[in-house]
Amino acid sequence: MTRDELVAEIKRKKTFLCVGLDTDPDKIPSHLWEKEDPVFEFNKAIIDATKDFCVAYKPNIAFYESLGESGWESLRKTLEYIPQNIFTIADAKRGDIGNTSHLYAKAFFETSDFDSITVAPYMGQDSVTPFLAYEEKWVILLALTSNKGALDFQQQVLQSGEKVFEKVLEVSSQWGTPSNMMYVVGATRGEEIGVVRKQVPNHFFLVPGVGAQGGSLSDVVKYGMIADCGLLVNSSRGIIYASNEDDFAEKAGIEAKKIQLEMAKHLAENGVI
Amino acid sequence: MTRDELVAEIKRKKTFLCVGLDTDPDKIPSHLWEKEDPVFEFNKAIIDATKDFCVAYKPNIAFYESLGESGWESLRKTLEYIPQNIFTIADAKRGDIGNTSHLYAKAFFETSDFDSITVAPYMGQDSVTPFLAYEEKWVILLALTSNKGALDFQQQVLQSGEKVFEKVLEVSSQWGTPSNMMYVVGATRGEEIGVVRKQVPNHFFLVPGVGAQGGSLSDVVKYGMIADCGLLVNSSRGIIYASNEDDFAEKAGIEAKKIQLEMAKHLAENGVI
Repeated sequence: MTRDELVAEIKRKKTFLCVGLDTDPDKIPSHLWEKEDPVFEFNKAIIDATKDFCVAYKPNIAFYESLGESGWESLRKTLEYIPQNIFTIADAKRGDIGNTSHLYAKAFFETSDFDSITVAPYMGQDSVTPFLAYEEKWVILLALTSNKGALDFQQQVLQSGEKVFEKVLEVSSQWGTPSNMMYVVGATRGEEIGVVRKQVPNHFFLVPGVGAQGGSLSDVVKYGMIADCGLLVNSSRGIIYASNEDDFAEKAGIEAKKIQLEMAKHLAENGVI
Repeated sequence: MTRDELVAEIKRKKTFLCVGLDTDPDKIPSHLWEKEDPVFEFNKAIIDATKDFCVAYKPNIAFYESLGESGWESLRKTLEYIPQNIFTIADAKRGDIGNTSHLYAKAFFETSDFDSITVAPYMGQDSVTPFLAYEEKWVILLALTSNKGALDFQQQVLQSGEKVFEKVLEVSSQWGTPSNMMYVVGATRGEEIGVVRKQVPNHFFLVPGVGAQGGSLSDVVKYGMIADCGLLVNSSRGIIYASNEDDFAEKAGIEAKKIQLEMAKHLAENGVI
């Protein structure tokens, strides 16, 4: 999917919500357990209920990988079920030496047909660029994450005065363009989204951590929104586990719609729509 | 597998070789393509031919993941086929926020029964410690990798004077012990293995890049070997693709044995055996 296509969907649907499909068999309603593929059935119902209120779906690959071969089958069926006009993110946090990253790219862009993949930057340029060789596919690089461990290395200060995550932004923004790279920018610290925005004024940010992980949507918008939005804000648990009864899909739709309405307001206030 | 058990195998077999099972369907002998599971048939023959000369097998997960569900099946069968006394490494370079890393740990330590997994450090402590919660399982953390991209971030100098990879060693060595953590330390720069060895005197190193990636075994031993060896040195392409004819397994065995003999000499010279 191109940036223009993504922005057109954001404007048309008046939302920049990404729904995280972090589907845990232990947390889905028990009546689904009898189905042949409970994880897929759950995702299918969640997609039906939320697809009008979001522009992206982000399965976290760990949830599927932990189930073995059947998990990969559920993931494949889920990806096939997502409507074509919705941006898909393999939240896989992969990255390896060049020829191996090429195979991860093949896994998620050819064997599976995701629009994008999250990538970890520790191994540097040749671990990231193989993912950028695909037309209309995106790398979403970890810059500043929302977990406590972000303090351990990302926030360390270099001799140049930059923090490690700032160096990652500076260097990696030369590898791709704002049309094939985004950044993961954690939402627990609003001002820091502003720091990142200053450094990469044109890139989209994928912002996790709004909701369960504690970030505020208003802060994310205040510090991160640009003329064509430039934001995908993710919510996982707050939507997909809004209820664990028979009405789980209906409740997920209600939660997604609530966020969509708030986002529509922000998009209008900032002149995006 | 415990450290004592691993060291006992190193002494018994007089080798610290790890064979990288980076099995690419395009590179395996064409006569295997007719088999139901060519990747597994290839691995099986390689394991039969090399198991007496190595103490570890390391499938790089990207090679299997790129094949979709059938790749995961080949990987599972391969893992089941590896003899119990050989240390297994899921070269997966995973890492995510705490509850997600927990699922990656489940994927590789429960759903699959690997002895260890390679983990990327960028997201910090809570992305690594879930893997350390398993008895007799190991984290092999990326410290200094052997690719060109290692210069981009790992080699950056912090205000404290330390390089980023040295900070990773300093901080992460507090999370586990030399009995459940190892480090990936690239072999293209012998002296740097010495720098790492000074900082973590008791941990095992997994050293990739000897052979195809250009490192020298003598340098690795000179700078990295300790009283109970403390080294696993990987070779992938140099062994598994020693021939791509009918004799591929035989040739792989010959290459592995060559390295084993060299390693036996080093182990004796350094008083490990």
